[in-house]
Amino acid sequence: MIHHSLAIEAVIIAIVIVTMWSSVSNFISIKRIIIGRPMRLKELHAQHNKLFWILALPILSADLYSSVSYGPESGITELAGLGPDARWIILPITVSTVILLAILIVSYIMGVLAYPNGGGAYAIAKDNFKRPLPSLVASASLLVDYILTVAVSVSAAVQAVASAYPAIGPYKTALAVLCVVVLLLVNLRGVAESATIFAWPTFFFMGCMLWLIAAGFLDEFRHGFVQPQTPSFGTVPEGLTLLLVLKAFSSACSALTGIETISNAVPIFRDPKQKSAVKTYLALGAITAVTLLGFAYHLYVKGIAVNPANTMLSQLAQSYFGKGPLYQIIIWSTFIVLILAANSTFTGFPQLSALVASDGFLPRALTNRGDRLGYSNGIILLAGVAIILIEIFHAQTNALIPLYAIGVFLSFTIAQFGLCMRWMKVKGRLWKTKLAINGVGTVVTAIVAMIFAVTKFVDGAWIVLIVLPVIILFSVAVRRHYNQVAEELRIDPSRMKPQAHRVRTIVLVSGVHRVVYHTISFAKSLNTDVTALFVGFDEESIERMKKKWEEWGNPFPLVTLRGEFRSLLSPISQYIGQLEDKEGHPDHIHLILPQFIPRRWWHHILHNQSALLLRSWFFRNKDVVITTVPYHLRK
Amino acid sequence: MIHHSLAIEAVIIAIVIVTMWSSVSNFISIKRIIIGRPMRLKELHAQHNKLFWILALPILSADLYSSVSYGPESGITELAGLGPDARWIILPITVSTVILLAILIVSYIMGVLAYPNGGGAYAIAKDNFKRPLPSLVASASLLVDYILTVAVSVSAAVQAVASAYPAIGPYKTALAVLCVVVLLLVNLRGVAESATIFAWPTFFFMGCMLWLIAAGFLDEFRHGFVQPQTPSFGTVPEGLTLLLVLKAFSSACSALTGIETISNAVPIFRDPKQKSAVKTYLALGAITAVTLLGFAYHLYVKGIAVNPANTMLSQLAQSYFGKGPLYQIIIWSTFIVLILAANSTFTGFPQLSALVASDGFLPRALTNRGDRLGYSNGIILLAGVAIILIEIFHAQTNALIPLYAIGVFLSFTIAQFGLCMRWMKVKGRLWKTKLAINGVGTVVTAIVAMIFAVTKFVDGAWIVLIVLPVIILFSVAVRRHYNQVAEELRIDPSRMKPQAHRVRTIVLVSGVHRVVYHTISFAKSLNTDVTALFVGFDEESIERMKKKWEEWGNPFPLVTLRGEFRSLLSPISQYIGQLEDKEGHPDHIHLILPQFIPRRWWHHILHNQSALLLRSWFFRNKDVVITTVPYHLRK
Repeated sequence: MIHHSLAIEAVIIAIVIVTMWSSVSNFISIKRIIIGRPMRLKELHAQHNKLFWILALPILSADLYSSVSYGPESGITELAGLGPDARWIILPITVSTVILLAILIVSYIMGVLAYPNGGGAYAIAKDNFKRPLPSLVASASLLVDYILTVAVSVSAAVQAVASAYPAIGPYKTALAVLCVVVLLLVNLRGVAESATIFAWPTFFFMGCMLWLIAAGFLDEFRHGFVQPQTPSFGTVPEGLTLLLVLKAFSSACSALTGIETISNAVPIFRDPKQKSAVKTYLALGAITAVTLLGFAYHLYVKGIAVNPANTMLSQLAQSYFGKGPLYQIIIWSTFIVLILAANSTFTGFPQLSALVASDGFLPRALTNRGDRLGYSNGIILLAGVAIILIEIFHAQTNALIPLYAIGVFLSFTIAQFGLCMRWMKVKGRLWKTKLAINGVGTVVTAIVAMIFAVTKFVDGAWIVLIVLPVIILFSVAVRRHYNQVAEELRIDPSRMKPQAHRVRTIVLVSGVHRVVYHTISFAKSLNTDVTALFVGFDEESIERMKKKWEEWGNPFPLVTLRGEFRSLLSPISQYIGQLEDKEGHPDHIHLILPQFIPRRWWHHILHNQSALLLRSWFFRNKDVVITTVPYHLRK
Repeated sequence: MIHHSLAIEAVIIAIVIVTMWSSVSNFISIKRIIIGRPMRLKELHAQHNKLFWILALPILSADLYSSVSYGPESGITELAGLGPDARWIILPITVSTVILLAILIVSYIMGVLAYPNGGGAYAIAKDNFKRPLPSLVASASLLVDYILTVAVSVSAAVQAVASAYPAIGPYKTALAVLCVVVLLLVNLRGVAESATIFAWPTFFFMGCMLWLIAAGFLDEFRHGFVQPQTPSFGTVPEGLTLLLVLKAFSSACSALTGIETISNAVPIFRDPKQKSAVKTYLALGAITAVTLLGFAYHLYVKGIAVNPANTMLSQLAQSYFGKGPLYQIIIWSTFIVLILAANSTFTGFPQLSALVASDGFLPRALTNRGDRLGYSNGIILLAGVAIILIEIFHAQTNALIPLYAIGVFLSFTIAQFGLCMRWMKVKGRLWKTKLAINGVGTVVTAIVAMIFAVTKFVDGAWIVLIVLPVIILFSVAVRRHYNQVAEELRIDPSRMKPQAHRVRTIVLVSGVHRVVYHTISFAKSLNTDVTALFVGFDEESIERMKKKWEEWGNPFPLVTLRGEFRSLLSPISQYIGQLEDKEGHPDHIHLILPQFIPRRWWHHILHNQSALLLRSWFFRNKDVVITTVPYHLRK
């Protein structure tokens, strides 16, 4: 009766926890095994060989191009309730999507011309708006969408494989989580070294898709194009509403996410950078348009219906090639490309969050690089939230789509509007044409974002519309806090010179043994006013301690306290409270605690770690300097 | 598409985490709200008013008596595969169960006579066996069974309610987890004060069960006893094997768990204690026997069939009373009594684990009492593992039963055998009769334990048979570790006197500001050899620091290090490594770290907490004394 899926997930979660823990507690030895040796800055730079545009194309296009595998399908899914008569509507929808793609690509080419060093929506907004709000909206929506890209791409990847192997159906969630964990580990290791390796699977997948489309035309030519299973064209099915068409359109638009990648990455191109980037944009746009149109057309002509257990791509491939090796190649290349799309996010998300954090709008911990120069906190955050989303939505792509893309289109809008501002300010050659292009881009992307928000609101977009303002308010609060702290810490070095204070030192002793010997010897080396403190839980143990201390030669005056329960905290905090209240109280109260350091990790649970609890309590509640003298157990 | 059950569970888990965290980090203010004010030892003693036996009966019997609600049903479930013809077999099985109950009660009365201060299996084994193994087997099996009691009782309670309200069926797991969380919170608050309140629901449930049985006889009298829906009696259905009968018998025996409670609790009775305890045992035995026999008989006569969505108790009550108020009373009193049974475990488990821990066989942290005098670590451990079990087995009582009761019968066997040893040693009045009784008890419980292990092995008993030796080995390892540490720490006080050491102090500085001013002033008060240490990530920041330090008047010699990445750890550990390797290295290396203490809890994530990371790393890897000087932020 044990549920295997749950057991698998438990194992995966255990791996995640171990990883987190090893990266938090800096257990270098364990980390080395999992994460690999640290990378040198020089290696990083050496690996940044500039790329020829044809090689850059697949590397930068995994995110955009992979979404063709689920975009049209999620559009058709919205119309499925109306029966086969509604299926033809995907054709005009796909045409609209391709027009939108063209507008976006032309607009983004303007971005490449404006920012030869790469300009994401956040950078463009920061550069062109005086107030921080637009850039915060851009960063919040991009961060949310990066997370959703991982969840959606990995879910779609697992669904592709589950279409070929229905037996793994019940374990989809577990497998999707496993994929994210693998991506997490790979990215904590750092993957920059192998970037060009990623080019080939995407090329291969592009080839597969084009070949599938060609095979389709061949097949249709043989069947005389309109086949018996082709649903009717042009009939208006009962129940068709504008809302439904817009909903289907916005779902289909999920195929356009990832378009901004190239404009962020202009510096990695071989010279002339901007020209190369523009070529790449044009080539990618053409391939994507052909794929979307061809794919949607074949889905319609073959009369493919929605089946949650078998993706439409899989059904189409099956209808041409059966379940043989050609079909397997298509399934696995889809899987690999979708995983690569998720992987590209593991670079984008931590870089953006580090950029925003270095401006003071997110916790500074996100700017910490790990040993392998990845921003490990950002990577862990991304994987963690993506796993939670996959768990909540049970790895169902279509359930995640309503949350997706709204953030992308918001950030598109801000970037376009920022570029308009720029052209008006900077002017330059042909600035009016550029302004017109980005003006159209702004309006179109704003409309699409609004269509998204309205049509998908109840299906899940409301979550994003709540989360975005929360992130933005958090960013503002973070920045304010950092400013206040900086203000509070400022001193005038010429007036405030450090000088010796009166320090009252208290050494906590639990008996007369090796650890206490060690600690008392340390206290003897300081030039402060030292008292030894013993807490007993009955008169007998207190008397015994007093006697032992006497026999030991009274190294320091001994104060004994009686604790009523087995707790050290309340007697010690009362005693310290009394010292603080005294007239002429010391400048610093200084508590010395001995601490056991066990030799094996599991021995930690065997020692009460009262030192740890006392320390955390006193830090929060009193102004007490705390010294911990470690004693490393040999056994 | 969001799964509500999961969302509910997420909320519950969040509550648990907050509770754990508040109890770990001793955030007294939050704890007070949830857990209430600390209890005084005097109150505890005042509340231990001795109990008249009729009031003690229900308090001590919730665990045993509540299991009648699922015991017979789990026996019948084993036979369900054979069809209605096999249903009569529950009658001889119930008779055997009742005979076993009688043997156990008489054996346990011997225990009460032998140990007037209360003797659980662990105490009896410790008292009568020279080697620790039998007592460790007893404690391990009892601890495992306490956990299973929580999981089984809470699952059965939720199943009872779900029988009346099928709509909550999908949320059973979430509700069971919620019940455990409520029990956890209630028990962290401490519940000794209200023990007598618990008497009435159990009395009431006993009344309900007896009344249900009486109503049944009235109904059967009217229908002439054998009714059309009564399955045939005495026919041997196809496929009936001895193994299956034994399996059904051992499932039905789950109704006998909890019998040891009274013998553990002799001191709470009013004088004459032992006589009162014996009376309670006899009365409880009689009521339980009547209930089991009557309940099983009616289930047979009414031809009730297994239905996972509707418990047999619910079906039977429904057949007499419909779905009206009488039925509701039975369902809710079943729920309450099963929750009380789980609750009684929250006293038993922490007490036993504290007892075993004080003998050095479990981590000493289990002997810590919380503010309200409950053993909070034990309570948290119990609730945590029970929740995991409920999650894995999706709150299905019948899936948990195979793991259950084997531990109980193992500990019964050890207790009985221990008593035999005692009679042979102590002798006294009628010792041969007592020896005979406990001898029979030993043999019978050993046989039942074996039947359990064999028939339930593949269904889940194997898990327990792996877990028990693991716990026992762990206990032995824990004890050995404590002994070794005590040996290591022993010193000769007349020869080892503490004396001043040479200390090399290093103060980590990150600039010239208020926190550094504070820390350097503290260091000035010590009489040690102090160096200030600055880590910069580029030449520019290092030069700037040198200049500022100079302007500040060089409070201490400044050492600057160049870090290649954003990590402080490796340059500092290299520097300390060099100090350690030097000829005439100091006795103690002493690192002073400034630490921010933010004013609001969420500000913690805004500060890099490098002090925290450095401290934990140095503790594990180097012999460095670490002082943290707190700076409490005002903003």
